[in-house]
Amino acid sequence: MDERTRADGLTVLVLGADGYIGWPTAMHLSRLGHRVVAVDNLSRRKWDREGGTYSLLPIATMARRVSRWRQVTGREIIWRRADLRQFEAVDALLAEFRPAAVIHFAEQRSAPFSMVDRAHAVMTQVNNLVGTLNLLFAIRDRVPDCHLIKLGTMGEYGTPNIDIEEGYLDIEHNGRRDRLPFPKVPGSFYHLSKVHDSHNIHFATRAWGVRATDLNQGVVYGVDTEETALHPQLSTRFDFDSIWGTALNRFCAQAAVGEPLTVYGKGGQTRGFLDIRDTMACIELALDNPAERGECRVFNQFTEQFSVLQLAELVAEVRRQHGLETEIAHLPNPRVEQEEHYYNAKHQHLLDLGLQPHYLAATLLDSLIQMVEGHRDRVDKVLLQLPSVTWKGGGNEVWRRYSQGRTLEAVEPKERVTA
Amino acid sequence: MDERTRADGLTVLVLGADGYIGWPTAMHLSRLGHRVVAVDNLSRRKWDREGGTYSLLPIATMARRVSRWRQVTGREIIWRRADLRQFEAVDALLAEFRPAAVIHFAEQRSAPFSMVDRAHAVMTQVNNLVGTLNLLFAIRDRVPDCHLIKLGTMGEYGTPNIDIEEGYLDIEHNGRRDRLPFPKVPGSFYHLSKVHDSHNIHFATRAWGVRATDLNQGVVYGVDTEETALHPQLSTRFDFDSIWGTALNRFCAQAAVGEPLTVYGKGGQTRGFLDIRDTMACIELALDNPAERGECRVFNQFTEQFSVLQLAELVAEVRRQHGLETEIAHLPNPRVEQEEHYYNAKHQHLLDLGLQPHYLAATLLDSLIQMVEGHRDRVDKVLLQLPSVTWKGGGNEVWRRYSQGRTLEAVEPKERVTA
Repeated sequence: MDERTRADGLTVLVLGADGYIGWPTAMHLSRLGHRVVAVDNLSRRKWDREGGTYSLLPIATMARRVSRWRQVTGREIIWRRADLRQFEAVDALLAEFRPAAVIHFAEQRSAPFSMVDRAHAVMTQVNNLVGTLNLLFAIRDRVPDCHLIKLGTMGEYGTPNIDIEEGYLDIEHNGRRDRLPFPKVPGSFYHLSKVHDSHNIHFATRAWGVRATDLNQGVVYGVDTEETALHPQLSTRFDFDSIWGTALNRFCAQAAVGEPLTVYGKGGQTRGFLDIRDTMACIELALDNPAERGECRVFNQFTEQFSVLQLAELVAEVRRQHGLETEIAHLPNPRVEQEEHYYNAKHQHLLDLGLQPHYLAATLLDSLIQMVEGHRDRVDKVLLQLPSVTWKGGGNEVWRRYSQGRTLEAVEPKERVTA
Repeated sequence: MDERTRADGLTVLVLGADGYIGWPTAMHLSRLGHRVVAVDNLSRRKWDREGGTYSLLPIATMARRVSRWRQVTGREIIWRRADLRQFEAVDALLAEFRPAAVIHFAEQRSAPFSMVDRAHAVMTQVNNLVGTLNLLFAIRDRVPDCHLIKLGTMGEYGTPNIDIEEGYLDIEHNGRRDRLPFPKVPGSFYHLSKVHDSHNIHFATRAWGVRATDLNQGVVYGVDTEETALHPQLSTRFDFDSIWGTALNRFCAQAAVGEPLTVYGKGGQTRGFLDIRDTMACIELALDNPAERGECRVFNQFTEQFSVLQLAELVAEVRRQHGLETEIAHLPNPRVEQEEHYYNAKHQHLLDLGLQPHYLAATLLDSLIQMVEGHRDRVDKVLLQLPSVTWKGGGNEVWRRYSQGRTLEAVEPKERVTA
């Protein structure tokens, strides 16, 4: 079967399909008529067990999710448990399904988790790099025409004092010109791993003619897509803790339970943001408009910029509409980062392909806060209020209390790379 | 014992002390009065066994080398077999010796070896990254004032169409300015691993205040230093094969045995070069002028630029002086690289510190060729004449013939990373 000729849709592998965005993506593409193979090694759930963290929204097992999806929609998502670090598993998946596209979310994606200690830093980089390398080799040898859609992060760029372009920069220097990869100053071992991936993927496109789209995604918010809303067992994760949750999730949860909104440092840290529905749309646009053979296309995938303090003020304002006063507290910043800086990142490519953004609205913040209120008995206020990892010292007393001596080795017994 | 107060020299760890440059460096620093701890896991010798390659100059075991060094000079080099991938080993070394500086050569350093197949690509990146990450954490926690001197490569930059600066580039873009890491376009999984290292080290200097000097070294030539010349058992490696040898080594060996000089493609590939004696001097300058706490200093470490074809013509000219005609043959290029390109790389920083270059002279080429002539019965002409790895297809029939089915797994039984 040729990779691109199915009139009823493409065969698409979604790697990391158990994750916050992976699962909604698998459903979204299934609903669009694609043949979706959902792959995960369930490491995200293991890392939760290690650190004593959890999704505020209860999430079903993958088996139950795909069975519920079939029952609700009549559509099939093929579920395969596999670990990208095992080359044989990757190779077998590509040989069996011959996908037209692979959407690759399957990485350790928390900056604080990568900063817990040396073991977490090494695990993050080895996990992310080896999985992506294995995938690149398997694509080269099994499905060379396959389109790799790889999730990167806007955090790869850091906070330069110049406009952030989409992946590449036209440079004039000493009277000569070149278009080169945008220089990266990432701020954690996780963000570094994504920069490493980007360089490896760029090389594979140049050396082997792989077609790749590298999506440097901003911070995603929201839990409702057309598909997750169909049934509670189709829900995706909502993380509120300091390791896996975003600042915006934290603020919504803090507002819901009447705690102060905790801003790290001055709060001038500015980033790109997007609604999870726009993530779905961006993936769809990338899939429908594949990169050329040998092309390493980079899109900055976000729709708006906010500073952390602006987000806290937006949440406080939403509460004020309900007659509630919300305190904003500034905590010592656990991270090493600039707290006041220039930030202007371009994000035109996806708009040019037709993206219609959902901008952050009070109604969405309100619905997120209400969702937390519906699960307020599940909110652990220590996990909510206190950072458990610092950039200089790693996991602190909060980390130790919640991990209860569980170690990465214990939850990751197969963390072995025999090259 | 404080790290920087020994009147009679510093305590210096030389990691990768069994390698081509590591061993001469260990001796050189020992002769200068430093207390040298030579560390290696001997993987270079194992990789030779895997691929059927070898040093043309016979090299002694590390035990014999340090014992001969003691006998010849009266000086002690402390030899420790250890693998940087084992954190406990790195940590124990830093705790025991509390070095003022660590000179880090301990990486898989062959581009073709990294391109043999997936296993070699993954091994190269995991080996190089994990070793360096372990070292960074051990420095942070054991000897935060220690100066990390890390060997990078000019190959990190690739061949941009603009002047190559030393590590950083002042960029003006849309009316704003910043000084950012120089954009990198490396050309193999090995070169990529060095770019990854550079990003990780840069982060450790910013986040933790590590002091680091990243030496982006050009292609090193020569085998004679003041120290290697003292005794045959103090010799360092001379590699002539297509995996471990440089183009210049290959040309010298080909000239010596009367074979055509094999230029890959057009031969316009231009790189920076330096004499191994200048490598010794550069390391010494970096050691004597340490980076500040939190500084990630980058020096481009080479003294002259040549194209591959220029080198072949230099070797042919040296032979012509002896009345010998040498053929230059152009082979299909096994690599994916530009064969004609702009190349102008800055290398002022080490000159400013006082480097007095030894420029490539006919007499040195002559002595290298004579050295090969003295061992001409050890030259395998197949290994000398035929590339055994291509960038598109990996290890070819030459690789398979010489590796004789020996696998990386077999020679690397401990290639395991339990994070």
